[in-house]
Amino acid sequence: MAVREGRWTTNTKRLALGFHQANVTILPKHLAFDFMRFCQRNPRALPILDVTDPGDPVPRIAAPDADIRVDIPSYCIYRDGKLVDRVRDLRDQWRSDHVAFLTGCNLSIDQVLLDAGIPFPHLVREDAFPAQYRSTLMCRPAGVFHSPVVVSYRPVPELLLLRVIELTSRFPLSHGAPIHVGDPVRIGIPDLAKVDWGRAPDEEPGTIPAFWACGITAQSAATTVGICEMITHAPGHMFVTDLPVSDRTLG
Amino acid sequence: MAVREGRWTTNTKRLALGFHQANVTILPKHLAFDFMRFCQRNPRALPILDVTDPGDPVPRIAAPDADIRVDIPSYCIYRDGKLVDRVRDLRDQWRSDHVAFLTGCNLSIDQVLLDAGIPFPHLVREDAFPAQYRSTLMCRPAGVFHSPVVVSYRPVPELLLLRVIELTSRFPLSHGAPIHVGDPVRIGIPDLAKVDWGRAPDEEPGTIPAFWACGITAQSAATTVGICEMITHAPGHMFVTDLPVSDRTLG
Repeated sequence: MAVREGRWTTNTKRLALGFHQANVTILPKHLAFDFMRFCQRNPRALPILDVTDPGDPVPRIAAPDADIRVDIPSYCIYRDGKLVDRVRDLRDQWRSDHVAFLTGCNLSIDQVLLDAGIPFPHLVREDAFPAQYRSTLMCRPAGVFHSPVVVSYRPVPELLLLRVIELTSRFPLSHGAPIHVGDPVRIGIPDLAKVDWGRAPDEEPGTIPAFWACGITAQSAATTVGICEMITHAPGHMFVTDLPVSDRTLG
Repeated sequence: MAVREGRWTTNTKRLALGFHQANVTILPKHLAFDFMRFCQRNPRALPILDVTDPGDPVPRIAAPDADIRVDIPSYCIYRDGKLVDRVRDLRDQWRSDHVAFLTGCNLSIDQVLLDAGIPFPHLVREDAFPAQYRSTLMCRPAGVFHSPVVVSYRPVPELLLLRVIELTSRFPLSHGAPIHVGDPVRIGIPDLAKVDWGRAPDEEPGTIPAFWACGITAQSAATTVGICEMITHAPGHMFVTDLPVSDRTLG
């Protein structure tokens, strides 16, 4: 409601801790079955929380009182694979053939990591946010969709690495365990300072780089393929659902 | 291969223990996105393991060397919501717009239950097989699809009930925990002897009735809605995948 009324306009880090936050990908219906298979085949990057009926702006499983057109702080509009606009409201864009996909997000388990005392920069510093990179790992394709896997980076203190892997692996709807730990070059990231999304991370002595599959993989697919139309949340500006994170699987 | 070569023609109980067995639902593409949302919204009954590309008979995630048209012992063909034929081979039926959905099955965790010493009748008697009933619990609808939840019945010795709930809840891709335990009347089953699929169970003194959501919910949706065309495995004659059950979530 704070988002809908314009009282919350920035990223959703540490909002509504304990509830799933979601990446949102809106597509015309003719692309929806391809994209749903793309998510199903790449559940590390795109774990499905909810898929709306065509034309229905209400995510009836994830947040039955919400309206996907107005309850996200900032939206990105892609046409023919290019980012063409950022808007705060989709009411003028929404059509009867639009389908919204809600997929899981790492921010959903920040409370779990805070409780465990994991000092990730984005948890302990107000201005920090995980950086994201296009990796050389490839998604399994589906229909027209294909893309590298986009990963988010967090530096893990050496002594906490096993604990971080253990904790995150328990939450497959929030990207689960890291998909890579160690030298970033191994997954095609030569320089951590050159981010594809977000801000360059600070150096963190005594830490090991860890990478998780990231929902921005959907935006990457839009640009990789040149998808005619895709509307998404703006990175970091997630849709906050009513689904408790303690439900680690749906159903 | 034994199925493809006609050497295995009966139900798949206790075959390839430790690997996922799958319900298979084949639909024309124009119904596939509705059905995929139906599965996604009803993961207890229809947990998705794999969805093929239109026209592709190979389940590339679940069994990349298999052919869904010939690797199931027996198929049911539904037209306009009615079972019209049972066949052993789909090569004459398969079209370029066909999509196959593979969804999880209880038989997949028989090894887990055997290891734990759970004496379910179908595990200890050669001729026994879980009976199935149409319940009064309702699926969440999606597009044209709606149906009661079909449940499978197993009698649980009283002292093992908590253990059975605990064990099965760990396997959400194989229907997870029971959706009802106790008086069958509470979910609309007045008489356990009147089964909707399978054979009537024997009386089992000292046991508590337990019911799990069942993949036959897909067939029930076909008949409830009057779906123009659906092809499925015959009940109990599952598709045996290459996916190990130890992977409790996909990805």
